Parts: sequence; structure tokens; C-alpha cells
Amino acid sequence: MNRNATGKPRVTLLGLGDMGTALARAWLSAGYPLTVWNRTPSRAERLAGEGADVAASAAEAVAASRLVVACLLDDGSVGSALADADLRGRDLFNVTTGTPGEARARAEWARGLGARFVSGGIMAVPPMVGDPDSGGYVFYSGSREAFEEHEEALSAATGAVFVGADAGLADLHDVALLSAMNGMFSGIAHAFALVRNEEVSLGEFAPLLSGWLTAMAGAVHTGAERLESGDHTTGVVSNLAMQVRGARTMLRTAEEQGVSTELLEPYADLMERRVAQGHGDEDNAGLVELLTASRP
Amino acid sequence: MNRNATGKPRVTLLGLGDMGTALARAWLSAGYPLTVWNRTPSRAERLAGEGADVAASAAEAVAASRLVVACLLDDGSVGSALADADLRGRDLFNVTTGTPGEARARAEWARGLGARFVSGGIMAVPPMVGDPDSGGYVFYSGSREAFEEHEEALSAATGAVFVGADAGLADLHDVALLSAMNGMFSGIAHAFALVRNEEVSLGEFAPLLSGWLTAMAGAVHTGAERLESGDHTTGVVSNLAMQVRGARTMLRTAEEQGVSTELLEPYADLMERRVAQGHGDEDNAGLVELLTASRP
Repeated sequence: MNRNATGKPRVTLLGLGDMGTALARAWLSAGYPLTVWNRTPSRAERLAGEGADVAASAAEAVAASRLVVACLLDDGSVGSALADADLRGRDLFNVTTGTPGEARARAEWARGLGARFVSGGIMAVPPMVGDPDSGGYVFYSGSREAFEEHEEALSAATGAVFVGADAGLADLHDVALLSAMNGMFSGIAHAFALVRNEEVSLGEFAPLLSGWLTAMAGAVHTGAERLESGDHTTGVVSNLAMQVRGARTMLRTAEEQGVSTELLEPYADLMERRVAQGHGDEDNAGLVELLTASRP
Repeated sequence: MNRNATGKPRVTLLGLGDMGTALARAWLSAGYPLTVWNRTPSRAERLAGEGADVAASAAEAVAASRLVVACLLDDGSVGSALADADLRGRDLFNVTTGTPGEARARAEWARGLGARFVSGGIMAVPPMVGDPDSGGYVFYSGSREAFEEHEEALSAATGAVFVGADAGLADLHDVALLSAMNGMFSGIAHAFALVRNEEVSLGEFAPLLSGWLTAMAGAVHTGAERLESGDHTTGVVSNLAMQVRGARTMLRTAEEQGVSTELLEPYADLMERRVAQGHGDEDNAGLVELLTASRP
């Protein structure tokens, strides 16, 4: 019951939104026996036709497999879906989107109910799931033993990167990367706004913009080194004082072009504050100090 | 006088800050006869020892070559440095940092004085100049004839990309790419702030972050296509309504981690406004509409 003819262990999956459905199909394609449950049954029925076993309740689904993957709307949905389930001896992998704090609380809750717990943060959109060449993967953190036991099954759906025993670290990595991406997307939106009403072909502009961002993403490595060493001044090529002057040119250009400065201002303000504190000769990694200054 | 033994035309360079000095050395290394001028003479004297001819005034430097490159502090410095120069028959390439509006006004001024004018926006830091493998380059716009006549000399210092006859376009491209970079840098700063007080090795985190940003920079191409076609809804994988939910998780995570939300908020607000206007099913390229809404 728990392993099929190929020896692959059964997987239980709770939640069949777009991401859950993509995960389900990836496991079915890879030959894993699969039990699914969804709060509204219609999506589960569609998967039954593709080979999944449909459980009548989340508790029944949990009873079917040692490996239980939850991919639900939010952390509250995890608590309510599993309210009646017997989690003893189960390995709960929660890839539901949430904060690190929610993951840490959910880990304690699950351990209290006799389960091993691993939180997951999915760095992929549904079309990337099940495609080993897509570059998509999932951050996992929590029980390393549970992760290692199920790594093969997990990897059949997406890449798997374990980032530590603290259950909050997967979501922290997920949110950190997505936050950085939104910063980049805000920059891209501003750049498009600047050029779109001019004699500029967006098709010719796009590779210039993506090439520049790709080249400049290398600054991440310098930033990490500076934050680890605490040395923000040795070998600085473009210091904050120069970057502040550049940011002012960007603000004036936005005004000239009739483009809102709302996306530019917070980073420009941050640099101005850091320079005003006497750090004009530093690289920009030191700005991080201002973001965490209020931390207890 | 205007061509040396190798047949290379003389270049005049006004301004020997870090970038001007790097340009000067690149031309000297490539075998171009070079006349330099700097407001404060000490930097020019150092270059004299490396083979440059030092002019006593900007007017004298301008008289030495048909190709005159200005790399000064700001647009006002260009006007004051050239106040007494005879620009008739000269090709003025102004790579001084400025706004598109300043470049357009400066182009009219130079043409009125009998010069051809090209503005430049430098996408490089000084150490990249003169190194053809560095990936650095300069956007040029204005007189295409002048650009083509001097392209070989310009390319001896850095890559050269001509973006149009409107003299403002080089600075517009420059500022657009740098603005997008600052957005990405703000995201990177936020990401580092989230993880740095946790059990996370920044050396292991850095390649995850730069890899993710590099992969997501491809969104530029989808964005350009959507803005050109006006179709923001076909084939959307992660729509704005979902992205708004993600942004709220990012804001809650920042608060949990004791990290300022100042860099996250403007883009999250922009998405909330666009969704409130009924565009929750769109991709994020439509956000550009809100940034230029006030444009006449």
C-alpha cells in the first residue's frame, strides 16, 4: 500500500491549487503512488483520472503515507485542515507560503503532535514544477533526518535545497529572494516608465536592461563579503557619496520625463542618510545597518 | 599634428577625474595622440609623464583636435569650461553625467556654436575602461555622422552603443539602467537585512540570491512584449492579485525580523493600487501605467 511495484513510497498531498496540482502531476509522472485531498473536491476528481487516490478527508489522506506534503492557502489553512488528523509518526512537509515566524510556530505544533516537521519555500511557478531543467527549486528547513529520508521523492517534483534545522529558515530564504526580486521588478518598472514614451524600441531596450541587471547582480557577492568582514571602505570603486549624486540625477530625470519618483525615493533617501552619518566613502553594503538599526 | 605615425587621429579630453583619467590612459595605451585639460592642473601633469599633451586652457585643448570629449563634473561645468572655446568644426562628445533634458539643451547650444554634438552615458566604472572584456560600454546619441566618424577612436576606450539622433536618449538609457540597478540594489539590501542576524552563512546565501535575480531578470523581455502589445492578461503565470498576497507576506516577514519595510512598501503599494483598479488578473508590466499616469 505504501510502496508501489517500483518501490517508490507513497506521497500524500494536501491542497490542489495551481501549485499543488503541478506537484501532484510531477509525482504521478515520476511514478510515485499519490494520495490527494483538497477542500473543494472537484480538483481532486480531475487528478483521480490521472492516477491519484483521492481521500475523503485530510485525516484519511494523512493516514495513507508517512510523507505528508501540505500546499495550502496560508498557515491558518494548515492548522484547520489538519485539526482532526493523527500526525504521530508522520513527516509533515509544509510548502504553504508563510513567514518564518509562522513556520517556527507550526514546527512546534507539529512536533507536539508527534510528527517530524520540515517547512518549504517554493522558488518556482507551477509550470516549472516537474521540469528538472527549469531551474526551480524548494528551500527546506527543519528536521534534517526527515529531509534526507524523503529527499529522493521531493526531488522528483523540484530541486531541493536544505538550509538548516531552524524551521523558519526556508521561508526566510524564500521571502528574502522574493523581496530582492520585487526590488529589481520595481527598478524595471521605473526604467520602462522612463523610456516608453520616447523614440525607444522596447524590444531593443530589453536586452540592454536585462544584460545590465545580470552583470550588476554580481554585486551580491561583494556585498556578502563586506557584511561578513565589516570592511566597507577598502577597494570601493563607486562610493556612496558618488552614488548619492547619481541618485539625484535619476530623480531629476524622472521629474523631467513625467515619471513618478515613488519607486526611486526610499533607496535614495537611505543613501542620503548613510552619507549624512559620515559614511560617504563606503560601498553600499553598509546601508543594511540602517535597515536593521531598530532591531533589539 | 592631428594624426600620429600610426595614422590615429588626435583626441582631446576635458576633465581628468577618475573616469577621465581612465579614458585618457585607454587612449594612450591604444596609441592615440591625446591632448588633455583639467581645471586643476596636477592630474594633467601626471598624464604628461605618460605621453599626453597638456593644454593650458580648455580653449587650447579644443583647438588641438576635431574630436573633443568632455568628462566633467556636471552639465554646468561643461558650459563654463567651454565658454571661451571656438567650437566651429569640432565634434563635441559629452560623456559628463546629466539628465536627458540637459543633454538636449547642451546639444542645441553646441550646434549654435558650430559643433556637431553627441551625448554619452557611461555604463562602466573606471577600472572597466580600456578593458574590452569588462562588458563596460557607453551609450551615445545625437549626430550619427559624428559618431560614425569617431566610432573607432571611441571604441578604443570602451564599447560604444548608438541609441538615436535625439541627444537626450543616451542619458535616458543610462539613467533608466542605473535606476533599475538601484531598485535591484534596494532589494539586495533588504534581503541581506532579513538574513544577517540569523544562522545563515552570507557566503552560501549570496550565490542563491544572485542566481535568483539573474534568472528573474528575464522578466524584462516579457515586460517589454506586454508593453508593446498592450496585452497584460494572456498567459499570466503569477498575476498581480497573487503577487499582492506575496508582498504582504514579505511585509509581515520584515516586521517579524525587525527589518524596516521602507524599501518594500512603494512597490507593494503600487501593486495594491493596480489591483484595486480591477487589474488583479494582469502581469506586473501594467504597473508602468501608474508611474506615468500624470504625464501630459
